[in-house]
Amino acid sequence: MHRISFVGAGNVAWRLAHALKDGGFSIVDIWSRTIDSAAKLADLVDANAVERLDDLSKDIDVLVIALPDAAIVNTAAALKGMDCLVVHTAGTMEMKVLKPYFSKIGVFYPLQSLSKNRAIDFRKVPLCVEAEDASSEALLFEWGSQLSSSVYRVSSAARKKLHLAAVFVSNFVNHLYVLGSDILAKEDLPFDLLLPLIEETALRLHDAKAQKVQTGPAIRNDIPTIHAHLDILSEKHSENLADLYKLLTKSIVDYHNSKTENTE
Amino acid sequence: MHRISFVGAGNVAWRLAHALKDGGFSIVDIWSRTIDSAAKLADLVDANAVERLDDLSKDIDVLVIALPDAAIVNTAAALKGMDCLVVHTAGTMEMKVLKPYFSKIGVFYPLQSLSKNRAIDFRKVPLCVEAEDASSEALLFEWGSQLSSSVYRVSSAARKKLHLAAVFVSNFVNHLYVLGSDILAKEDLPFDLLLPLIEETALRLHDAKAQKVQTGPAIRNDIPTIHAHLDILSEKHSENLADLYKLLTKSIVDYHNSKTENTE
Repeated sequence: MHRISFVGAGNVAWRLAHALKDGGFSIVDIWSRTIDSAAKLADLVDANAVERLDDLSKDIDVLVIALPDAAIVNTAAALKGMDCLVVHTAGTMEMKVLKPYFSKIGVFYPLQSLSKNRAIDFRKVPLCVEAEDASSEALLFEWGSQLSSSVYRVSSAARKKLHLAAVFVSNFVNHLYVLGSDILAKEDLPFDLLLPLIEETALRLHDAKAQKVQTGPAIRNDIPTIHAHLDILSEKHSENLADLYKLLTKSIVDYHNSKTENTE
Repeated sequence: MHRISFVGAGNVAWRLAHALKDGGFSIVDIWSRTIDSAAKLADLVDANAVERLDDLSKDIDVLVIALPDAAIVNTAAALKGMDCLVVHTAGTMEMKVLKPYFSKIGVFYPLQSLSKNRAIDFRKVPLCVEAEDASSEALLFEWGSQLSSSVYRVSSAARKKLHLAAVFVSNFVNHLYVLGSDILAKEDLPFDLLLPLIEETALRLHDAKAQKVQTGPAIRNDIPTIHAHLDILSEKHSENLADLYKLLTKSIVDYHNSKTENTE
């Protein structure tokens, strides 16, 4: 079984280390900027917390750098010389940023919103792997397949676009949930009212393409309702919300029109 | 048990009539603009399809007008004189649009995306009811409680805002799914890759407020990633997407800053 160490003890390292431990992998060392968070995670996954990067054992198969994007390159430089496979877990960073420092490099990107505070079924987390050489890729693939039922080979270029798409369907979507919840809060209506609709909108994608199930005033060109909504938003002096409403409505209309033209 | 008839045989009438039948209610008549669709639904819920509004039986407790907004008032005028409780099912129309035509009026608004093509657990559909008099309200409440575990009294004014919030968290969200799916399609990546993330983003709202789980480049002010994303969108000549990206990013940043100021 592979021996794995972690640099970083944040949300991604936390969930990944737990999944690895549950899958029977040996986690060797964990380093973090603060020894306390390294110690906390190490304790839970039967690993050692190390205080200095130099203290990381060399006798491992994979080193996972699970750090914020901005910290990856500097930390990789400080780790120069590790001769195991070294991977990062970032959606937007190219694999080659690791190139100057290590002989075997790769990426192991879990496409999910991971949090220390929320357990997750790791079998359902899509894993996007990339490596420079075939044997490293095979190792990451094998490793990933033991943790998750969906492992994909994704190049650095494609991964960037995947991350961009994830921003649209998760970060931006969550912000729309925030805005919807604020509209309800002002009426003293509970947000729970919207949960079944939110769930249905997400879950129906298992059975139908999003393109086929678009509903609402924009796609049916229901001008009176659109005006009524903009009136509400202008009464509330919510310029930001009105701008978003207009742009999203325009985007739905334009998208729909372009598809209709294309099929004519 | 109440006797109920429907004017309209579209998605809302379809799902509501099925839920009523399953709940043991008697559905008497169904009228639709096209007799064929009335007949199709009537057949499934043991009701009569009627060709003319005049043919609707007077011996009923509730008449449900489940029509597109634009058709409600004209149809209500044509139904003038029905002396049972008459309700519409629209999110944005005020109850009082029915006032000139009937003595007992109300609203029965299911806050869910309903489709003929997709079965749904009606117990989980929030029902928003409103009536002019107390006994009609009690009747709608009793009726709703037999179909769903969540029935709310919601005024016409509050319902409009609820509908607006629903547009943000469902129609606009679905459009973001569409845009995300297009970004993946251009890379020949399967949309399935995003489904677990989409689900998690929706389902975690049962345990955490959307405000507390906002992640992504905008909220952490990750300028390099934001620029990298805008570069991808400009390469693809996706002005519309770039505009949306910028406005949603700005909205997240402004929202977060305003909340931080408020709590300082």
